[in-house]
Amino acid sequence: MSEKITALDLPQGELSDATRAYFAKCEEKLGLVPNVLRAYAFDEKKLRAFTDTYNDLMLGESGLSKLEREMIAVVVSSINHCYYCLTAHGAAVRQLSGDPALGEMMVMNFRAADLTEKQRAMLEFAVKLTEQPAKIVEADREALRKVGFDDRDIWDIASTAAFFNMSNRVAAAIDMRPNAEYHAMAR
Amino acid sequence: MSEKITALDLPQGELSDATRAYFAKCEEKLGLVPNVLRAYAFDEKKLRAFTDTYNDLMLGESGLSKLEREMIAVVVSSINHCYYCLTAHGAAVRQLSGDPALGEMMVMNFRAADLTEKQRAMLEFAVKLTEQPAKIVEADREALRKVGFDDRDIWDIASTAAFFNMSNRVAAAIDMRPNAEYHAMAR
Amino acid sequence: MSEKITALDLPQGELSDATRAYFAKCEEKLGLVPNVLRAYAFDEKKLRAFTDTYNDLMLGESGLSKLEREMIAVVVSSINHCYYCLTAHGAAVRQLSGDPALGEMMVMNFRAADLTEKQRAMLEFAVKLTEQPAKIVEADREALRKVGFDDRDIWDIASTAAFFNMSNRVAAAIDMRPNAEYHAMAR
Amino acid sequence: MSEKITALDLPQGELSDATRAYFAKCEEKLGLVPNVLRAYAFDEKKLRAFTDTYNDLMLGESGLSKLEREMIAVVVSSINHCYYCLTAHGAAVRQLSGDPALGEMMVMNFRAADLTEKQRAMLEFAVKLTEQPAKIVEADREALRKVGFDDRDIWDIASTAAFFNMSNRVAAAIDMRPNAEYHAMAR
Amino acid sequence: MSEKITALDLPQGELSDATRAYFAKCEEKLGLVPNVLRAYAFDEKKLRAFTDTYNDLMLGESGLSKLEREMIAVVVSSINHCYYCLTAHGAAVRQLSGDPALGEMMVMNFRAADLTEKQRAMLEFAVKLTEQPAKIVEADREALRKVGFDDRDIWDIASTAAFFNMSNRVAAAIDMRPNAEYHAMAR
Amino acid sequence: MSEKITALDLPQGELSDATRAYFAKCEEKLGLVPNVLRAYAFDEKKLRAFTDTYNDLMLGESGLSKLEREMIAVVVSSINHCYYCLTAHGAAVRQLSGDPALGEMMVMNFRAADLTEKQRAMLEFAVKLTEQPAKIVEADREALRKVGFDDRDIWDIASTAAFFNMSNRVAAAIDMRPNAEYHAMAR
Repeated sequence: MSEKITALDLPQGELSDATRAYFAKCEEKLGLVPNVLRAYAFDEKKLRAFTDTYNDLMLGESGLSKLEREMIAVVVSSINHCYYCLTAHGAAVRQLSGDPALGEMMVMNFRAADLTEKQRAMLEFAVKLTEQPAKIVEADREALRKVGFDDRDIWDIASTAAFFNMSNRVAAAIDMRPNAEYHAMAR
Repeated sequence: MSEKITALDLPQGELSDATRAYFAKCEEKLGLVPNVLRAYAFDEKKLRAFTDTYNDLMLGESGLSKLEREMIAVVVSSINHCYYCLTAHGAAVRQLSGDPALGEMMVMNFRAADLTEKQRAMLEFAVKLTEQPAKIVEADREALRKVGFDDRDIWDIASTAAFFNMSNRVAAAIDMRPNAEYHAMAR
Repeated sequence: MSEKITALDLPQGELSDATRAYFAKCEEKLGLVPNVLRAYAFDEKKLRAFTDTYNDLMLGESGLSKLEREMIAVVVSSINHCYYCLTAHGAAVRQLSGDPALGEMMVMNFRAADLTEKQRAMLEFAVKLTEQPAKIVEADREALRKVGFDDRDIWDIASTAAFFNMSNRVAAAIDMRPNAEYHAMAR
Repeated sequence: MSEKITALDLPQGELSDATRAYFAKCEEKLGLVPNVLRAYAFDEKKLRAFTDTYNDLMLGESGLSKLEREMIAVVVSSINHCYYCLTAHGAAVRQLSGDPALGEMMVMNFRAADLTEKQRAMLEFAVKLTEQPAKIVEADREALRKVGFDDRDIWDIASTAAFFNMSNRVAAAIDMRPNAEYHAMAR
Repeated sequence: MSEKITALDLPQGELSDATRAYFAKCEEKLGLVPNVLRAYAFDEKKLRAFTDTYNDLMLGESGLSKLEREMIAVVVSSINHCYYCLTAHGAAVRQLSGDPALGEMMVMNFRAADLTEKQRAMLEFAVKLTEQPAKIVEADREALRKVGFDDRDIWDIASTAAFFNMSNRVAAAIDMRPNAEYHAMAR
Repeated sequence: MSEKITALDLPQGELSDATRAYFAKCEEKLGLVPNVLRAYAFDEKKLRAFTDTYNDLMLGESGLSKLEREMIAVVVSSINHCYYCLTAHGAAVRQLSGDPALGEMMVMNFRAADLTEKQRAMLEFAVKLTEQPAKIVEADREALRKVGFDDRDIWDIASTAAFFNMSNRVAAAIDMRPNAEYHAMAR
């Protein structure tokens, strides 16, 4: 960890036992501690709020599969050209789908992918919410219901797309660097 | 609470004692339970992750005053034309500043306001982060340092602007309605 | 009137009797002389051309109600983030409708408002004309006719939206400041 | 005059003597009655408000030459891709300058023209005011003062650019057609 | 040829006999050697690659008429505000159509022109491909097929629109100046 | 080659001996025949014009290294979200640089990369030329000269950026699919 993981110089105190344990679990399950967690660790309250939100959103119960949530993450990050999130979540799409090209398509242009009509509607909603949030109207929600999403699914699509609009901007603002390991994963 | 506060139909279970107590405290301190909390309350885990993030960000310790954080909230929401956040946080700017016109300026165009050079730099960073996150470079961070912000302040500016880019999009996606009380507050 | 109402330093001569009488009538009917009139008063020919255009457009006979014309004014000004016009015409919407929240919605995002299909079509036309005038085609006019507007109404919608695209830019260019009284009106 | 000059069907009453005289004067001085005047003539009050504004702005006293005002007109209309105004005012630039290529450059891309620094600053201000009115700040006015414009000139630059942002939109909204004669003028 | 035709200072060697012959042929057929050819002539390999591409595209066999290809050229150049291409290809539209106003409409706003449904679809495809290439989907190709274009025509529409997106940018980057003769042609 | 490589159905005749030899050489040197060549092969004249242009541009003599030209290719394609070009030229950046992460940065956001000032200026010029060609002015060329590029280099930067603005649009228009082999190359 000699390299800087953000452009900011934030004094890093001693990690608490809880955080150390959490990082050890990351290491064990993912093979690494995502740099985003190290970036937030200068303030454990912020770290915990972030992981609570993230874990519920991306790993909790949902009508969307984990892969679909990762697809939304990458498509939003593609619009925002977020180096951190495209790297980390692009790897996740490759891993969860077992399809390296699918990960690339989400990073580059999801319209190149051979998706179901339902997935396509989900991603187009995420695109509009990212690019023109002020122009979302009832017809946009209806389009999601029409292809089979229920209102709880709409909440999850919205929350996931919205979360990465936040995350992309935190990463951009502080030049957050992804772990080098992501690049080679699941190619 | 007979009116719908979002466009989604999400089954609302019994609130836990903890949430009931939290809402009672809101009522006492703010005179209302912000509708955003009622909107998240269909799932208490999501509600807690949201309030933990929000309270740390907007009420926790920071080199930025509460008013400055609210100014960022409103300026970001103005770009995204978010009815919920402009209403609720516009009221907060009016209240914290005791200057109704300042609240209106943040909602309409912050460039009309008579701000310090430091505040102006803070808001211009928030604008660029909102409109063109991919184009943030070191020079943008340097501009903040030059007017007197330290790296922890930059984190807080970035996190606040990023958070409302999320929040604006959740609100837009589900047509979240602000409490009617906000409109008349602190005029 | 000690404060500057624009960023320009334009020598203000003696007002003519006619203009003085006009301003007295404003004072009597509106409780103030709108700063836009004071701004134009450095040249009475320009002032008269402006008021002739404005009064015909906003107060003259039309298939659109005065409230509807004010709604167009505010929606256009919201896109252009015009502090002067949002303040003055936001107040007018609150006053004419007797609904403070409606004024706020026009300022923030008219899509949040519970409008008739006809009003929505009228405002969507104003938005497109503001954002992408080059892309207006016959189908856009047809959409207005379909919800019940006749060709004279289309002229009025177009003229009103176009006028505020002018007015917003004059105000932006010279940093025109609205009268402080508007903020508290009809809340 | 058998061809329609706008897409709207507006009942045209008998013209008043004053208007008939005005049109005769146009015919005499310009060789034609500009279609924009015929378009407004369905309501003589609107016609008069329009011509009063237009004549003061484009023909009245100003620190800007008539050619410079026409250059602003065309540059704004180029951004808005307004067929009517580009045709009519492009002809005016060709005529007033005696330089057909200059007219074309204003229509196509004024940055190709060999202008004075002062004219370039004037046109860049008009461009920013057209594209991003909300972002005009004191520094933009200062840039005009620095190249030699006084505050009255700034008013005129602003008013002219703003006026064509109106005019372009009226023309776009109703598909106003320029007189065929303009195309061949001053080539 | 004393005036510079680009902003770059590129050493121009002796022209080969083949190029001299080619330029003589241009002179004979067009009355001029297009400056774009002189601009590329500093390197004959580049010149030949350019003319081979250009001549096949614009003069070769195609389901699109030469006029239609020129219309695409001008419409794309209008979006990109390319002075060189609008001048040269605007003249070509005037010449091939024998309709000076049509050339102007393509330069200014093709939506003002009275086109067939098929031509309109062709140009709308060129516009979308220019403005938002990432958003082209199968439905856009289907729209072309529906009005009667076959897949080879789609190739030609796409290639022509794409080519001028290249050419416009070469011209913009080096400030390429069109031959003065174009302005007066076919008026 | 059973899968379609574009969305168009273009009758593919017998390849000439020359083209067959060229494809064999590709196979030998690159391990594959790039699908873009197969896409153009329905018309050998178009294929040859394309390869002549491409080979001169990307492989010919230049003050820019091959890697730098590929970096421009990828950065332009990132703005245009071109799946084909990002895949093929992203692989080229990884290969030529021996730095897989560099390839990813060009695809995702080149601003994350640790580049020389000269390379950064080169890519910022390519970005502006892609996004706002009409706004390129002499100052933009001067910025390139200032970091050490000569006028011939500027030609090459411009031509490369412009070429991919063409190529991205051909690929988008016909849904061109990259060879699957690119994804795993040089990871």
